[in-house]
Amino acid sequence: MPQGPITSTINNMADVWEVYRDELEGMERQIRANLDSSVALVNTVAAHILSSGGKRIRPFLLLLSARLCGYTGRDHHQLGSLVEFIHTASLLHDDVVDDADIRRGRRTARKVWGNQISILVGDYLYSKAFCQVVDFRNHGINDVLGEACKKMAEGEVLQLYYNGNPSMPEADYIKIVEHKTAGLIAASCRMGAILADASEAQQDALFRFGQHLGIAFQVADDTLDYTANGERLGKTLGQDLRQGKATLPLLHLLQHCSKQDRQMIIDRMETRTLTEEDLGRFIRLMEELGSITYAMDRARSYIAAAQQDLNQFEDSTAKRALSVTADYMVTRDR
Amino acid sequence: MPQGPITSTINNMADVWEVYRDELEGMERQIRANLDSSVALVNTVAAHILSSGGKRIRPFLLLLSARLCGYTGRDHHQLGSLVEFIHTASLLHDDVVDDADIRRGRRTARKVWGNQISILVGDYLYSKAFCQVVDFRNHGINDVLGEACKKMAEGEVLQLYYNGNPSMPEADYIKIVEHKTAGLIAASCRMGAILADASEAQQDALFRFGQHLGIAFQVADDTLDYTANGERLGKTLGQDLRQGKATLPLLHLLQHCSKQDRQMIIDRMETRTLTEEDLGRFIRLMEELGSITYAMDRARSYIAAAQQDLNQFEDSTAKRALSVTADYMVTRDR
Repeated sequence: MPQGPITSTINNMADVWEVYRDELEGMERQIRANLDSSVALVNTVAAHILSSGGKRIRPFLLLLSARLCGYTGRDHHQLGSLVEFIHTASLLHDDVVDDADIRRGRRTARKVWGNQISILVGDYLYSKAFCQVVDFRNHGINDVLGEACKKMAEGEVLQLYYNGNPSMPEADYIKIVEHKTAGLIAASCRMGAILADASEAQQDALFRFGQHLGIAFQVADDTLDYTANGERLGKTLGQDLRQGKATLPLLHLLQHCSKQDRQMIIDRMETRTLTEEDLGRFIRLMEELGSITYAMDRARSYIAAAQQDLNQFEDSTAKRALSVTADYMVTRDR
Repeated sequence: MPQGPITSTINNMADVWEVYRDELEGMERQIRANLDSSVALVNTVAAHILSSGGKRIRPFLLLLSARLCGYTGRDHHQLGSLVEFIHTASLLHDDVVDDADIRRGRRTARKVWGNQISILVGDYLYSKAFCQVVDFRNHGINDVLGEACKKMAEGEVLQLYYNGNPSMPEADYIKIVEHKTAGLIAASCRMGAILADASEAQQDALFRFGQHLGIAFQVADDTLDYTANGERLGKTLGQDLRQGKATLPLLHLLQHCSKQDRQMIIDRMETRTLTEEDLGRFIRLMEELGSITYAMDRARSYIAAAQQDLNQFEDSTAKRALSVTADYMVTRDR
C-alpha cells in the first residue's frame, strides 16, 4: 500500500496506475463480486457496460482521498465499487435519454437489449448500491451519497429542460455540470476522507477538490466533442449539438459569431439537422473565435482551483497521484 | 389518533378511511412538502403523477402497522411519503417500459413530457427518497427499504425476461409478483413496526402480512385486466396480453384450453396483435374454464394467509383496519 513521502517516479497517469495497480485490481474484483443478482440477465447487462473500459475515476479518487487522509483499511474496495455502480446506472439511463447507440466504441446496452432492460438494470444498480452502502452503517457516507444522487438527477433534468435552447446562461451550464457530473466525483472524494476519519476541514477540502475537478472534467469532455478524433473516443463529433445540447464552446461561439451564423446554429439545434459540412463550419468558427481555447481555459482554471484545494495536505504519494490525476482529467487523450 | 379496543363502526374501507382521515391528510401534506426540488420541472412532473388519485396504500399500511404496534409519534408521515416517492418512481419507469399512455384515467407523464423526463424524474424521486430515508438514522429502516428496491428492480427485469413467453412456470409468475409488488408493501409494514420499536417477531409477522397481501393485490390486479369495466379503471382490458405479459389467469387458460386455442393465444402474444374479438374469445374461455375463478381464489388464499399473520396481535382499531384493508385489496371496485 503506497503511502509516505513523494515517490519521485510519479510523473504521469501511467505512473499513477502502476503505483496503485494492486488496489485497482482489488476494486475490479469487488465490482465483479457485486454482480450477484439472482436474475442472470441483470448481471449480464451490468457486466456489458461495466467491462467496457471505463477508467474507474470515481472509485480511484475515493481510494486516493482515503489514502491521502491516512486510511489503511480495505473498505474502499466495496465503497468504490458501489460508486461505480451508481455511475454505471446513470450511464444506462443517459444512453436511453440520449438515444445513444455507441459508448466507448461498443454498442450500448439499450442497443443490445433495448431501452426497457437498460432502464430496469439501471434501477437495479442504484438499488443495489443503496442496499450495500447502508451496510457501512455510516451516516456520513449515506448522507453524502444520497445528496449526490439527488443532484445528479436534478442536473440531468435541468439539462433536458434547456435542450434545444441556445440562450442558456453560462451560469446554468455550470450548474448542470456541477450537478450531473461533479456531484458524484466530489462525493467520492469526501467518502474517502470519511473512511479515513479525516477532519471536517479535510473532508470539505477534498469535496471541493472533487467538485472543481468534476466540473473541469465535464467542461473538457464537452469541448472534446468539437475537437477530438472521433474514432479514438468511440463516438462521432458534434453529438451534443445534434442532440440540442448547448455546451460551453457552443455558448461562447453563439455569443461571438455573426448574426447569420448564430441564426444558422440555432436553426440546426432546433430542427436537429446537422450536416457534416455544417459541423465543419461551426468547428472552424469555434477555432477562429477562440471558443475552444476559452472552454479549455475554463476547464484548466477549475483544475488550478482543485490543485489549490490540495494545499492543506502534506506531501505524499497519494497527494502527488491526486495532483497528476487532476491534470489528466483535462488532457485530450484521456 | 385512533387506538385501543375495536371500533365496531369499522365495517368497510370507507369506515377505515374515515377513522384515519387526519392521518392521511398529514401524509398528503408531507408528500407535497417533499416536492421541493430547486428544479421546478421536477416538482411539476412528480406532482402530476402523485396527484392522480393513488390510494397511498403503502404509506397507509405503514401507518396502520406502526399504530398496531403502539407507535404514538409522527415520523410515519415522512417515512410514508418517501415510500410513496419510491412507488411513484417505479410507476414513472414502468410507464416508459410499458409504453403506457394512460394511468388512472389521466395521460401518463411520459405522454405529457416524454420518456426522457419520466426516466430522470423517476431517478430523482428514488434519490430523494434515499436521501431523506437515511436522515432517520435507522439502520433497520435503511436495510429493509434498500432490499425492497433491489427486489423491485429484479422483479421487473424478470418480468421483461419472460415477456412474450407463454411457458413461464406459475412459480416464476409468483416470484415476479412477490418481487415487483409485494416487496415494497411488505417493507412498508415492517418499517411501521420498526418505527414502533416492535419485537422481531412482530416485525416479521407484519412483513409476512405485507408480502401475502402484496401478492394477493397484484394477482387480483392482473385478473382485473380480464374482467374489470375498462373505463372505470382508467385503462382498457387485455393490456397485459397486448404487451406479451403472461399473468395468472392466462397461465391457467393456457394449461387448460385446447391445442388450437393455445396456439392462437401464443401467436397473439408473440406478434402483439390482439383484436377485440380475440380478446372477447379469450375472456369467454377464461370464464368457461375457470381461469378467472382460479386466479381470484389464489388471491383470496393469500389474503387468508395475511389475516393469519395478524393473529398474534391483540384486537385494536388498527388491527381491524388492517384486516378490512386486506380484504379490500382483492375486491373488484378498489
